[in-house]
Amino acid sequence: MRSPSEIETCHITFIPDNIIAEAAVGDNLLKVAVDHGIHIDATCGGAGVCGKCRVEVQGDYRLSEADYLHEDEQEAGVLACRCEVLGDCTVTVPEATRVTGTLPSRSEGSTRRVRLTGLDADARVHECGVSPLLTKQCVTVEPPAADVGSTDRFRLAAALEKQGVPLRGSLIDIELMRRMPTVLREQDGQVTATLSAQRDDAICGGLPLLVNLETGDTSEKLYAVAFDIGTTSVWAQWLDLKAGTVLAEAADYNDQIRFGADVINRILACKKEGGLSRVRQAVVDTMNRLLEQMAEQCGLPLTSLAYAVAAGNTTMSHILLEVDPRHIQLAPHVPVTRFFPPVKAATLGLSLDSQAPLFSIPNVSAWVGGDIVAGALVAGFTDDDPMTLYIDLGTNGEIVVGNKEFLMSASCSAGPAFEGGGIKHGVRAMKGAIEDFHLNGPDAEPMVLTIGQARANGICGSGLINTVAALFLAGVLQPNGKYIAPDGIRRLRETEDGLEYVLVEAANSAGGQDITLTEVDVENLLRAKAAVFAGITTLMSEVGMDPSMFDQVLIAGSFGQSLDVERAITIGLLPDLPLDRFRFIGNGSLAGARLTAQCMDGFRWSEALAHRITYIDLGVNPRFMDDYVAGMFLPHTAGHLFPAVTELLRRQKDG
Amino acid sequence: MRSPSEIETCHITFIPDNIIAEAAVGDNLLKVAVDHGIHIDATCGGAGVCGKCRVEVQGDYRLSEADYLHEDEQEAGVLACRCEVLGDCTVTVPEATRVTGTLPSRSEGSTRRVRLTGLDADARVHECGVSPLLTKQCVTVEPPAADVGSTDRFRLAAALEKQGVPLRGSLIDIELMRRMPTVLREQDGQVTATLSAQRDDAICGGLPLLVNLETGDTSEKLYAVAFDIGTTSVWAQWLDLKAGTVLAEAADYNDQIRFGADVINRILACKKEGGLSRVRQAVVDTMNRLLEQMAEQCGLPLTSLAYAVAAGNTTMSHILLEVDPRHIQLAPHVPVTRFFPPVKAATLGLSLDSQAPLFSIPNVSAWVGGDIVAGALVAGFTDDDPMTLYIDLGTNGEIVVGNKEFLMSASCSAGPAFEGGGIKHGVRAMKGAIEDFHLNGPDAEPMVLTIGQARANGICGSGLINTVAALFLAGVLQPNGKYIAPDGIRRLRETEDGLEYVLVEAANSAGGQDITLTEVDVENLLRAKAAVFAGITTLMSEVGMDPSMFDQVLIAGSFGQSLDVERAITIGLLPDLPLDRFRFIGNGSLAGARLTAQCMDGFRWSEALAHRITYIDLGVNPRFMDDYVAGMFLPHTAGHLFPAVTELLRRQKDG
Repeated sequence: MRSPSEIETCHITFIPDNIIAEAAVGDNLLKVAVDHGIHIDATCGGAGVCGKCRVEVQGDYRLSEADYLHEDEQEAGVLACRCEVLGDCTVTVPEATRVTGTLPSRSEGSTRRVRLTGLDADARVHECGVSPLLTKQCVTVEPPAADVGSTDRFRLAAALEKQGVPLRGSLIDIELMRRMPTVLREQDGQVTATLSAQRDDAICGGLPLLVNLETGDTSEKLYAVAFDIGTTSVWAQWLDLKAGTVLAEAADYNDQIRFGADVINRILACKKEGGLSRVRQAVVDTMNRLLEQMAEQCGLPLTSLAYAVAAGNTTMSHILLEVDPRHIQLAPHVPVTRFFPPVKAATLGLSLDSQAPLFSIPNVSAWVGGDIVAGALVAGFTDDDPMTLYIDLGTNGEIVVGNKEFLMSASCSAGPAFEGGGIKHGVRAMKGAIEDFHLNGPDAEPMVLTIGQARANGICGSGLINTVAALFLAGVLQPNGKYIAPDGIRRLRETEDGLEYVLVEAANSAGGQDITLTEVDVENLLRAKAAVFAGITTLMSEVGMDPSMFDQVLIAGSFGQSLDVERAITIGLLPDLPLDRFRFIGNGSLAGARLTAQCMDGFRWSEALAHRITYIDLGVNPRFMDDYVAGMFLPHTAGHLFPAVTELLRRQKDG
Repeated sequence: MRSPSEIETCHITFIPDNIIAEAAVGDNLLKVAVDHGIHIDATCGGAGVCGKCRVEVQGDYRLSEADYLHEDEQEAGVLACRCEVLGDCTVTVPEATRVTGTLPSRSEGSTRRVRLTGLDADARVHECGVSPLLTKQCVTVEPPAADVGSTDRFRLAAALEKQGVPLRGSLIDIELMRRMPTVLREQDGQVTATLSAQRDDAICGGLPLLVNLETGDTSEKLYAVAFDIGTTSVWAQWLDLKAGTVLAEAADYNDQIRFGADVINRILACKKEGGLSRVRQAVVDTMNRLLEQMAEQCGLPLTSLAYAVAAGNTTMSHILLEVDPRHIQLAPHVPVTRFFPPVKAATLGLSLDSQAPLFSIPNVSAWVGGDIVAGALVAGFTDDDPMTLYIDLGTNGEIVVGNKEFLMSASCSAGPAFEGGGIKHGVRAMKGAIEDFHLNGPDAEPMVLTIGQARANGICGSGLINTVAALFLAGVLQPNGKYIAPDGIRRLRETEDGLEYVLVEAANSAGGQDITLTEVDVENLLRAKAAVFAGITTLMSEVGMDPSMFDQVLIAGSFGQSLDVERAITIGLLPDLPLDRFRFIGNGSLAGARLTAQCMDGFRWSEALAHRITYIDLGVNPRFMDDYVAGMFLPHTAGHLFPAVTELLRRQKDG
């Protein structure tokens, strides 16, 4: 992971618009152009197939291979979609490549896409300080003597007591008793004890004071691992708790995906004979893979990890600890517990030392889990003044609203649309997925951009939002989510199920077939965004407030990262607020897990937060259903909730 | 097990002595006679072989088969050794059967053998009251509701809180979390929680408040098992903790015997690759066998046992918990620990419920273990005034001296003589072992009695003491442990290694060979008794006292049960005190384990005792070596330490 300060930047000057764009070294030129409102023809998603994005470039750049080859390639410039900028460049966009007209934007006069500031998790973690959940103390025990009471345990306790750690009277885990005779004799009595920071505290409750025992002096090394156990992906960071830094990071899809994409299917898989054990093993396998990758990156043994902290949604937490999640699925959705005890990670099958504990960040309810608690914690609004909306978008759009005065949460069953599910050509956010979309002028010709600039293979969640917003603003989609009459719009066509818009034609797609957006797809997106927005309005109404009162909106999750906030507001997913009130949190769950691993107070706060955050069950809330139905329009039935979007539409109509 | 009050007694009148003996129904007639000083010829050990113990019996009795058949059997009466009394009887001992002369005895004029009163463990346990280490509470949890925080854990905590058990905030074992969703839904929410009695107490320290969880109401049933883990035998009692009674008892040889008879050999076996695990499994197998036997006796499932308490010597405790005992064997003899945490019994392989804990009674030192602590506890002298000697005889003669003011302990390496080890014809105390011995008149013809009235196969520890005492009092053995000149004593004969006395001739023995007692055997016994007595004098000298100051002597262990205290004094093993100061404790370790299992205070006392009892290492004590050498005589070099024995010898000499 590179921190923002480590990224080298360069300047790209676009001619003839004379727009100077700041870009990162290695950025794709087409993306830089799109992000800065420079419209360049591109109908293949940036896959180097259609050959339409030809520009002239002077400066430091590198070209990757293109499928599209033109005889007079050298003379005619380069394909922007194949060009990676390596330093300052000047780019001349020829007349043939430029498109006329600009997308409507609230940013008066400017076409530049708004980049939101992200949360600096590093800074937040350092702000909280480094005070690990477990500490180490190196001592040298006296050699055995024939004195009364001169047991190994006594010698260790005496040595620790000299260092101000009163072990006497504490029960010692039988496993450590078993280790003692060897460990105490290997390096002339020099041993390092891992101690729980606060014996009777909620954090380490249930943990004995003495957690581990190693030969020699390892007290200068203290490592832990932080996990974000997502339904789709698992992220991990190897933390150096002495330096307060991240030594390695790894991520991979959760192996549980083979049991189903969402938590409901995972729970169903757990209900089968031996299912819980199998589903659990899958995530453990994933975690072990990440552990090994990180160990290799760090050049450190897995046994050097003193403990692990895991944040996950309630179902993931249950499954990881092999606690039956079935009653989460069934009404009234009762988890076994919200708070988990520290568990020896090795008993779960994790490749840590047999004594190293795994701490779980507590959950709020069946549908608001430790991942949200962790994210809210690291976002830092829960003890501050600004009225905040914290939102993590996915199959379940989990939201937390409030500030230091109150905190409420809900989970909006958004359905899988944000993850490309239930959409005719929906795909996950992977290479080839359409993630950006623009319309070129009055004939509604599209410009699509795919992840990794590959031939398009479908549309992902953020692409869906961007596409619907663009089609809506261009007047191709009506407020009710239906297309206008297709007259004169080549890309719109009739099917048995209604109209559909051709995003990418067969010739340019990866699969050799048209990639389209149907009216059913749009309806599914409307359901999803209506559920989330209704969740927001319902929570705010509980305290007599409305969404205009948010001082800030924090967007978490990897989906959030790729979200075009302006367009998300346009479709009515996010509240219509000035863009400077929005911030990306990134993987709040992972950052929160890191924070709690590194900072005892952090863990304590997570416990307090799980208690403080009130859960509102939208499924039984009458207000929610009303708001949901009202949200099934673009941007919303109640136009006054989206004043800027309404004004934009009015201006556009007038203009 | 029958309590003393359940034993039916009857009266046996011996003619012509006119001695009325009280006997138990079922007692062997020869043993009744011997115990009451009636001397009857018996040279085959009571095996029904020699035919010498013929008597006439009138009354209620039963005969078992005899090998010895005589033509005129009916007229000539019955063999006393084959006769079991069933009610009051009159026994006429014919002239031919009676022996002349009586054994010298301190009991002026009486030849009756002194029966010591035993400890009534039942009474002692009831005196302490029944307050189990774990308790049960039946509650009915509310059905799950869609309320905030309505987790299984919350529902259980709320139900318990209603009953005054504040579970909130307590960490709950992950295994119980895993059980919760099923258990809470099986019987309409009715569950029984097993709770640790005192959360922060030394006893249950490390145990969470909630120890177990069962479906339905089992609160009226609370069982535990008490174990005495002996090096040789394992004893167990199934306790009904509601009634305060013993429902079943079982005992068996410790399967570890195959790794060696004593703790040193067990430790050596543990030091081999994988040895600890194998040796541990052996005792676990033994314990599981006893558990199954008792479960069958009770008609109760093993899962109904709430917990186990085990008392054993320090090595046995280490091995059972799979803690390496090797440093116990090597100087300076450092155990890993004296205090063990409660451990889930199932993790040790015991057939208890997976949550049921095993509590270990703490040890004092490498050589004074939890068995001695348990015995001292149940003997009850540790908080009382009388100056007490508590002694458990075996390979190690463990002794505790003191009262409520001070407590000191030591382990005297007696060697294996008390268990028949190192003795030419030594055997364990099993059927056929010579356990009693008398001399008939001036020609020193023997009368031997074996365990189970079988043909003799050797001599056991108590038999050895009895035999040496008798030979010494008869003047056949000299104070230095050497035989007198064999002139005129048919049973004494010369060998290459010195003189030996023929206890049983080949014709009457089980193996068809002479069973003898050699001078080397006698020396080995002298070493053993000298070590024990020197231990006693050394401990007393530490507080400026001597053995005459004991108000009581408590003899524990199965060996103690068969010990003839008068003769043990005669050889200088036990202090020369009035016989009414001696009491048998029986299996103090088992009784102590039962007491601690049944009574929380009992367990607390055992912890306190392990702290209070000072351990004196005789191996490095100069006084001990002096006293040991002085003890290598019969009864002792310092005759003033054995005034009554000295007086007896003087009287005998004069007479």
